[in-house]
Amino acid sequence: MKAEIISAGTELLLGHTINTDAAILARILAEQGIDLLHVSVVGDNAQRLRAAIAEAMQRCDLLFTTGGLGPTSDDLTKEVVAQYANLPLVEDEASFKRLQEYFVGRHMSANQRKQAFLPLGATVLKNDMGTAPGCIVHLRGKHIILLPGPPRELSPMLENYVIPFLKQLSNASIHSTIVRTWGIGEGDAAELLDDLLQGANPTAATYAANDEMFIKVTAKASDKDSAVKLANPLVDKIRSRLGNVVYGIDVPSLEYVVTRKLIEDNISIATAESCTGGLLAKRITDQPGVSSIFGLGLVTYSNIAKENILKIPSDMLSKWGAVSEQVAREMAKNVKEIAKSHLGVGITGIAGPDGGSAEKPVGLVYIALAFPNGCWLRVMQPQGIYLGREWIRNRAASNALDMVRRHIYGLPCEDKEN
Amino acid sequence: MKAEIISAGTELLLGHTINTDAAILARILAEQGIDLLHVSVVGDNAQRLRAAIAEAMQRCDLLFTTGGLGPTSDDLTKEVVAQYANLPLVEDEASFKRLQEYFVGRHMSANQRKQAFLPLGATVLKNDMGTAPGCIVHLRGKHIILLPGPPRELSPMLENYVIPFLKQLSNASIHSTIVRTWGIGEGDAAELLDDLLQGANPTAATYAANDEMFIKVTAKASDKDSAVKLANPLVDKIRSRLGNVVYGIDVPSLEYVVTRKLIEDNISIATAESCTGGLLAKRITDQPGVSSIFGLGLVTYSNIAKENILKIPSDMLSKWGAVSEQVAREMAKNVKEIAKSHLGVGITGIAGPDGGSAEKPVGLVYIALAFPNGCWLRVMQPQGIYLGREWIRNRAASNALDMVRRHIYGLPCEDKEN
Repeated sequence: MKAEIISAGTELLLGHTINTDAAILARILAEQGIDLLHVSVVGDNAQRLRAAIAEAMQRCDLLFTTGGLGPTSDDLTKEVVAQYANLPLVEDEASFKRLQEYFVGRHMSANQRKQAFLPLGATVLKNDMGTAPGCIVHLRGKHIILLPGPPRELSPMLENYVIPFLKQLSNASIHSTIVRTWGIGEGDAAELLDDLLQGANPTAATYAANDEMFIKVTAKASDKDSAVKLANPLVDKIRSRLGNVVYGIDVPSLEYVVTRKLIEDNISIATAESCTGGLLAKRITDQPGVSSIFGLGLVTYSNIAKENILKIPSDMLSKWGAVSEQVAREMAKNVKEIAKSHLGVGITGIAGPDGGSAEKPVGLVYIALAFPNGCWLRVMQPQGIYLGREWIRNRAASNALDMVRRHIYGLPCEDKEN
Repeated sequence: MKAEIISAGTELLLGHTINTDAAILARILAEQGIDLLHVSVVGDNAQRLRAAIAEAMQRCDLLFTTGGLGPTSDDLTKEVVAQYANLPLVEDEASFKRLQEYFVGRHMSANQRKQAFLPLGATVLKNDMGTAPGCIVHLRGKHIILLPGPPRELSPMLENYVIPFLKQLSNASIHSTIVRTWGIGEGDAAELLDDLLQGANPTAATYAANDEMFIKVTAKASDKDSAVKLANPLVDKIRSRLGNVVYGIDVPSLEYVVTRKLIEDNISIATAESCTGGLLAKRITDQPGVSSIFGLGLVTYSNIAKENILKIPSDMLSKWGAVSEQVAREMAKNVKEIAKSHLGVGITGIAGPDGGSAEKPVGLVYIALAFPNGCWLRVMQPQGIYLGREWIRNRAASNALDMVRRHIYGLPCEDKEN
C-alpha cells in the first residue's frame, strides 16, 4: 500500500506555519506498515492543488490531504477534491448539528456553515476538537482522506477514526519501539551502538530532538506479535549497552517517567528556581495527576525573594553570589523544608544572553537535589558556543529531572560538566 | 527567481521530526521576494535524493536542501550533491578548526570529522550553533544551498550568511508586516476584515496559531521603501478596525510586549499560579532582562501551600474551594503583598483531564490581576469541547498577560467567558 500526503496552505509556503501534520500522519502510517513515498506542500490555489491531487493519485493508493477544510475562502480542499472526483457537496446533518453545539451561546459566522458540506458518499470523520469534519472519498478502489489542518484537531481524528480504517486496509504489521535516553550525544551513541545500527529487519536508528537522543527500533512481520518478538532482543541489547542513560522504553518524556515513579512511590517534591523561572514546575505540572506529589514551586528570581521567601542567608548571597553551588544547595534544602516534601530541587544560573562575567559566564548553572539524608549537585559549564537562553533553561530543568530519576531509581549521580 | 526545498530525512517520512526547516526557510524566501513553488520530503536514500535533486534543478534556480549534513552514515546530502555536481569533497580548514573548538575538552568521535568536508569550490556557510557547516554549490548559473537540519543551527545560518547572499540575487523587494491579536477568533476577524482581505498588492491574510490570530500584510515593490509605503495604510486600517485586541505590530509575542512595557515603566509583577503550574512565570522569564520587574513567582499547587505560603485563609478555601473567584483574587492580592510588587496575578482552575465536577467542570479557570487600587477578574468557562490540558493552561496564562497588558496600557478589561 503506497501513500502520499498533500498539505494545502499558502501559510506553509510562506512559512507562517510548520507542517506538523505531515509528521503526525507519517508516524501513524509507519506504524501501520504503509509506505509513505512523498510529501508535498501546495498553496491555496485550486488549479495547483488539483494538479497535485491528480498527479499523486496516479502513483498512490491512499492520498491524504491536510488543511483547507475550514471556514474561510482560502479553504479549498473539499471543493477541489469534490470537483476532481466529480461529486457534489452535500450537507451532512450530524456535522451541522455538531457545529451548532460548538457555537452554542456564541456567534456562528455565516462562513462557518460550509464546513458541514462534504462530497456525496464520503465517509464522515468526526472532528472531536473543532468545527471542520474530515472525510474519506472512495474512488475506483483508492481513497482520498481529507483531514483538518490544526494538529490538535488532526490527532484525535486520526486516532479515533482514521487508524481503524487503515487497519482494515493494511496486511503487514510494523512494530516500533523507542528507547529514550538523556545524557548522551547522538555521535557518541552512534559509535557505541555502531554494529546494532546496521540491521535490515529489525532496523535501529538514532535521532536527536531538543536535548535528548532516542533510538527507534522497527520490525516488520506478518502480524503484530511476530514483529514484537523480532524487535525485542535488539531493544534489550541497546538498553544494556547504553546503561542508565536510558530513562525509558516507549515513554513520552523524562518528566512523565519521573512523575509516574514519584506518584507510585508517594515521594513528594518541591522546586526552587531562579534562572529556569518556573520551567521545571511547568514541566512537572504538564503531567496530569501530580497534585499528590507536587504542592509547591518557588520562582525566586530576585535576591530579595531568595532571602525573604526561601530564607537564603543574606551573607551567603553576598559571600558566594546567587549563582553558586552553596546557594543552589541551600535553595534545594530550604524549599524541601518549607514544603515539607521528601525532595527539593534548587536551580540557579545564568541563562543569558546578558548577565555573565569572566568568573561566572553565561551558561553556568548549578542544580541541586536535596533528599532526606543528603544533597546532590550538578554543574552545567558553558559550552564552547552559546546555544541560547531556551536551550540552557531546558537543559537545566532536564538535568534536575534526571537527578530526581537517579535518586528515586537508586542510580548513581555524577556531576555533569556539560 | 524560483526556489524549491528538498528536506532530506527518513525521520521526516516516519514522523519522528517535524519539518520546521521548510517553514523557517519559506518565511525568509517570502520576505526576499523569491517564489517558493514546491517543498518535497525525501528519505535518507541516495538514489531517491539524487532523483529529487535532478528533478528540482530542472524547474528552479535556487535549490535549498535541509538535513543530511551531520556525522552519521544516514547523512548523505553533501555526498549526493557532490556526486550530482561531479565535484570532489575536500576538507575545509576553517570548518575543521571550528569542529576542534566545539569538542575542546570532550571526545570527538571519528565520524564527526567528515562534517568538515565540502564540495570543491562551494561557498562555506559557517554554523554558529553546531558542528556541521552548510555550503552553496554554484552550478551553471544556478545554486544549490545545503543547510543543516536542526532549526537551532539553521536559523542563524540563514540570518547571518544566506540572507545576505539572497539579497544579492533578488531584485524585487517584498515587505511583510504582522498585526498580532489576542482575544478574537479567526472566523470573526475574517468577517470583520472581509473587504480588506481581498486586495492583490498589498495582500492581507488571517492566520491562527496556538490561541492567537494574526494578520499578515504583504506588499511587493521595486525597493523596500516603496513596499513599506504600500503596506502601511492597510496595516493602519486593520489595526483601527480590530481595536484593542491588537497587541502589537511586528512583535514576537504577547509576553514580549507586556514585559517590555513593564520594564520601560518600571512596574513590577509577581505571580501566584495553581493550575498553570509555573507556565506564566516561565513565559515571563522566557524574555531576557526581566529581573528588574519580576522577582517572585509562586506555584501553590496544593491547598497547604496556598495557606502556608500565600496566606489564603483556610476558611476561604473551605467555603469557596480552591477554584473560585474569591481565592483567585486573594492569590493575586497576597502575592503582590508578599513580593511588594506593583501587580500580582492569581490563577486557579481545573486544567483536566480529571478533577472536574458538575459545579466546577474541567476548563473552569479564574484569573485575577491585583493592582494598587483594585483587582480585575476573568473567568474562562469550559468550551463545548475539551481542548486539552495544554490548551487550557496556555490560554489561562495568555489571559493573565492580556489583563496585564490592558492594565499597563490603560485599556478596558472585560470578563472573558471563553
